[in-house]
Amino acid sequence: STLIVTFQGLFLISFFPISGSWNVIRYLPSTVVNTTLRLQALREAMSSVNVSAYIIPGTDAHLSEYIAPRDARMAFMTGFTGSAGTAVVTLNKAVLWTDSRYWVQAERQMDCNWELEKDVNAYSICCVCDPCRMYHCIMVVFSNPIETYESYSYNLVPAKLMLKSIPDNLVDGVWTDRPLIPPDNLIRLPDRVVGRTWQMKVEHIRTQMTDNPYKPTAVLLSALDETAWLFNLRGSDVPYNPFFYSYTLLTLNEIWLFVHKDRVTEDLKLYLNSTCFPLAHCVQLLEYEQVRVMLKNYMTTSGVKVWIGTEYTNYALYELITPEEKLLTSAYSPVLTTKAVKDETEQRILRDAHVRDAVAVIQLLMWLEKVVPEGKETEMTAAYYVNECRSKQKDSRGPSFETISASGPNAALAHYSPSNATSRKLTVDEMYLVDSGGQYLDGTTDITRTVHWGIPTDMQKEAFTRVLMGNIEISRTIFPSGTKGECNMLGRRALWEVGLNYGHGTGHGVGNYFGVHECTIALLIVNFECLQVVSLPEPGYYKENDFGIRIEDVVVIVPAHTKYGHNYLTFETVSLVPYDRKLIDTSLMSPQQVRNTRCVDT
Amino acid sequence: STLIVTFQGLFLISFFPISGSWNVIRYLPSTVVNTTLRLQALREAMSSVNVSAYIIPGTDAHLSEYIAPRDARMAFMTGFTGSAGTAVVTLNKAVLWTDSRYWVQAERQMDCNWELEKDVNAYSICCVCDPCRMYHCIMVVFSNPIETYESYSYNLVPAKLMLKSIPDNLVDGVWTDRPLIPPDNLIRLPDRVVGRTWQMKVEHIRTQMTDNPYKPTAVLLSALDETAWLFNLRGSDVPYNPFFYSYTLLTLNEIWLFVHKDRVTEDLKLYLNSTCFPLAHCVQLLEYEQVRVMLKNYMTTSGVKVWIGTEYTNYALYELITPEEKLLTSAYSPVLTTKAVKDETEQRILRDAHVRDAVAVIQLLMWLEKVVPEGKETEMTAAYYVNECRSKQKDSRGPSFETISASGPNAALAHYSPSNATSRKLTVDEMYLVDSGGQYLDGTTDITRTVHWGIPTDMQKEAFTRVLMGNIEISRTIFPSGTKGECNMLGRRALWEVGLNYGHGTGHGVGNYFGVHECTIALLIVNFECLQVVSLPEPGYYKENDFGIRIEDVVVIVPAHTKYGHNYLTFETVSLVPYDRKLIDTSLMSPQQVRNTRCVDT
Repeated sequence: STLIVTFQGLFLISFFPISGSWNVIRYLPSTVVNTTLRLQALREAMSSVNVSAYIIPGTDAHLSEYIAPRDARMAFMTGFTGSAGTAVVTLNKAVLWTDSRYWVQAERQMDCNWELEKDVNAYSICCVCDPCRMYHCIMVVFSNPIETYESYSYNLVPAKLMLKSIPDNLVDGVWTDRPLIPPDNLIRLPDRVVGRTWQMKVEHIRTQMTDNPYKPTAVLLSALDETAWLFNLRGSDVPYNPFFYSYTLLTLNEIWLFVHKDRVTEDLKLYLNSTCFPLAHCVQLLEYEQVRVMLKNYMTTSGVKVWIGTEYTNYALYELITPEEKLLTSAYSPVLTTKAVKDETEQRILRDAHVRDAVAVIQLLMWLEKVVPEGKETEMTAAYYVNECRSKQKDSRGPSFETISASGPNAALAHYSPSNATSRKLTVDEMYLVDSGGQYLDGTTDITRTVHWGIPTDMQKEAFTRVLMGNIEISRTIFPSGTKGECNMLGRRALWEVGLNYGHGTGHGVGNYFGVHECTIALLIVNFECLQVVSLPEPGYYKENDFGIRIEDVVVIVPAHTKYGHNYLTFETVSLVPYDRKLIDTSLMSPQQVRNTRCVDT
Repeated sequence: STLIVTFQGLFLISFFPISGSWNVIRYLPSTVVNTTLRLQALREAMSSVNVSAYIIPGTDAHLSEYIAPRDARMAFMTGFTGSAGTAVVTLNKAVLWTDSRYWVQAERQMDCNWELEKDVNAYSICCVCDPCRMYHCIMVVFSNPIETYESYSYNLVPAKLMLKSIPDNLVDGVWTDRPLIPPDNLIRLPDRVVGRTWQMKVEHIRTQMTDNPYKPTAVLLSALDETAWLFNLRGSDVPYNPFFYSYTLLTLNEIWLFVHKDRVTEDLKLYLNSTCFPLAHCVQLLEYEQVRVMLKNYMTTSGVKVWIGTEYTNYALYELITPEEKLLTSAYSPVLTTKAVKDETEQRILRDAHVRDAVAVIQLLMWLEKVVPEGKETEMTAAYYVNECRSKQKDSRGPSFETISASGPNAALAHYSPSNATSRKLTVDEMYLVDSGGQYLDGTTDITRTVHWGIPTDMQKEAFTRVLMGNIEISRTIFPSGTKGECNMLGRRALWEVGLNYGHGTGHGVGNYFGVHECTIALLIVNFECLQVVSLPEPGYYKENDFGIRIEDVVVIVPAHTKYGHNYLTFETVSLVPYDRKLIDTSLMSPQQVRNTRCVDT
């Protein structure tokens, strides 16, 4: 009774089979996927390697926010295409855990083979001993993969179950028409958008290694943006983010880059010094799949210590770093913390990207103002329009996430994006919210505006004004360099004053031609060490079945000149799209807040 | 080579003796204490029990904020009387660690037998293997005692040293004139200031025990305020806090109270039902020193599980709770978290205490305004005056902490209290800060005011006004019930705007005739679960060698009525002493802030 993590960080459990039957007739909507055959094939594969339960997380081996179609194993097995979830298949049960945002969607997409488990949070332990349940339950936690694995193990002990790595991914074995690795070559960023060469970055990371009191000899880069950032390379393997499949093992003397080598052009090989003698500034290219073998080999060297970021390193690699003296962990590697701080070039060029991006969004808003009264436009056509406007801008590389284009009650739903089934007609009687962003060679944008083309109610005006006040209160704050703190309360206070609130965070980091959610909330809010990071005040207010308001800007952290102090910082807004003046009740605002507001003249 | 924790949570280390000599001639100020003989006696005692190093923490067995004279073992051994520190004595070395606030004081009080170690913080490991050091080094951490012990053990392993409990405290053995336990009887709170009887409190805690998913069978109360609160009893064993030496072991069916039984009157025995048959509401009295034996005995019962607060339970008790399945830990016991929430009676009566307290402080301020220009008063006489004013108020039980009475540059020092050596004359040319509080049967107060009797500079006015703005911004905030957050930034923002800041926290909990630092900052700021707790916005500003400003009020958390929402809360200030209007520049404040200010008419 042992078990198993695959290379992709997927899990298997062996357990004591319990017989049970499950005969429920359920009405099936036309949106379900028939999973009978694929489940049967997976169970055969499970039996052949003598395991009794298989855990399929919704993410990929790099714990990416967006995953490539070929990594959508959970979606393939379950039919459910939401972005968060974990599936477990036993010999006679199949269960999906996902959070409340996705319950309706999961019910619509999964057939009778699958059961939806709604009771999921970081602390829910679905005890294996519970006699009411046919399947062997596990703790489902949305935390880092290493902790997840360890909590699985911990909770399986009482049931005499064990987790153990297995070399192959069983889902891949039954997924006959699994999409291939995209053939596209990696691309190198043009010099005009590069602040630091990859050699400078490598040296900077090595300095952090030698400065670290625990004296690591290597850093293992697992997140896709780590390698892309380090070498100033980009790709298109996952949606919305310009990343490519990769790992890097960076030591004080050598650099190993694990990629699909046939996608690296001769020019790139030259750029990476890949053919030179293995020295400190020569990138040795190895096949993507070789990372495990190479790491295992490196661990046999005496005196090595590997530094990893625990928030995104998969267990299959983590377990190779033994014994424990050879491991150094932090939540994020020095690459991710360094990347979060934008250098001068990055700060300068991202402003350019925001100018062009503002043109596209203003084009949308002006067009809508003209055409909405004619009654022919919908959420879908508006989303299409803004994507088109962006695509015509210089250095455009597509949207940075799926555009949220939401009218009236749809805007009150978290994570709403329009589809043919849900798209509402835009009218002068409803508020409209558009949250969108673009990838450009010189930056990544993310902006939300809420407008009304008719006559807003007093309540709508008050809510909008107070959301705006939260946005202004954050962005005009001056704070000492090194502040650890929480600006969350500043974003909410004007809303709280009249008993309103919102249920999401107040900001996140943004990359430069990178992920739109770069520096995690935790890193950003808990600790302003992310100095000069581009972040977002994004307060909102959502009235169920009625309307939704959000205002989101990108800001840069810049030095502030104060009367008495030194080393103070403040935010400078680089988003340039005006707010809808019709929705602003200036009588609620302080004179200082009014001075900080840019308004649309409608 | 083993070693040792005493009952009081003190530590010993056995180690391999290293010979060394230490001959430094040092100029000795007259303030030093000669520790030669007592150190010699302690070392003899150490040798006789075969240990080579002895660790003497600065606190008592209950981890109290203020300790009784008989528990001042560190002060006795070192001569140093500061409130924070850890001493280590080896056979040929004696070292004290304390933080920067106390370095000057420690140098003045310790003789040549002692060395002052300044390099101390939560992460400093003074490695045992360091060849430059004669003494065996240890990790000195200011965290909870259990973690401290475990980190000692952890760091001693490489040097093949061990920590182990020993039954007796070696310092007590050599401290011939150690103060006795005070003879005073415990006192019972009058009914008029009691909201909940002890029986109600016991039942409330038992409900929390049965509701807890880990099913504890007992709660062990180690902090002195836990037992005092539970039984509505008070004492006078430590300075400033009305506590008495005690432990309580509360199970679902029985109650054991460990006290010095000869200090419990017949009336109190009746009140505690101490002679009834051992049932759920009968308090069984045991001698204070019996707690370890009783707990050890209780642990032998099958199926028991003891709940402790790890922040203040000493290792000597903790180590008895084995095996691990019999232990349930949280930072604070349910008694401390329940105590932090004030019931209606407590909220009502504490307002009364603040009215009387305000009279005393206003008497001081009015008197100073009259007499300071005559040039005869000092920081000392002002402190004496306010203590006298308080002592004349109804139900007064003395000061709640040592009065901070500080003029000019003295006010810029953290934790300054005047002494004959430092006391400044009060003049119309300097700002004056007074931070003081009183114990009353019906409440505990803590208030800080800063005044100027002459003409303040523009900079002083601006700093004072911005400190006041921080105070107002916190106290007028409306927030949803259950908010977890940080109001720290609200207290600082007006100062940050002009590059000013302060280096301490922005508030703490306050008891009702209890400790003036009740609910810890962590509990209060991180989590507003401390609902209805009495807390303090206390922003400040300190200009070195010039002046210091602090404004501190006690506030109560009360329901707020908002336009749209339900279950919102806000702060209501119960401190009633006005601010010095001369120091307020209303032109810096928003109209709303001005409306929230009470001013002194000077």
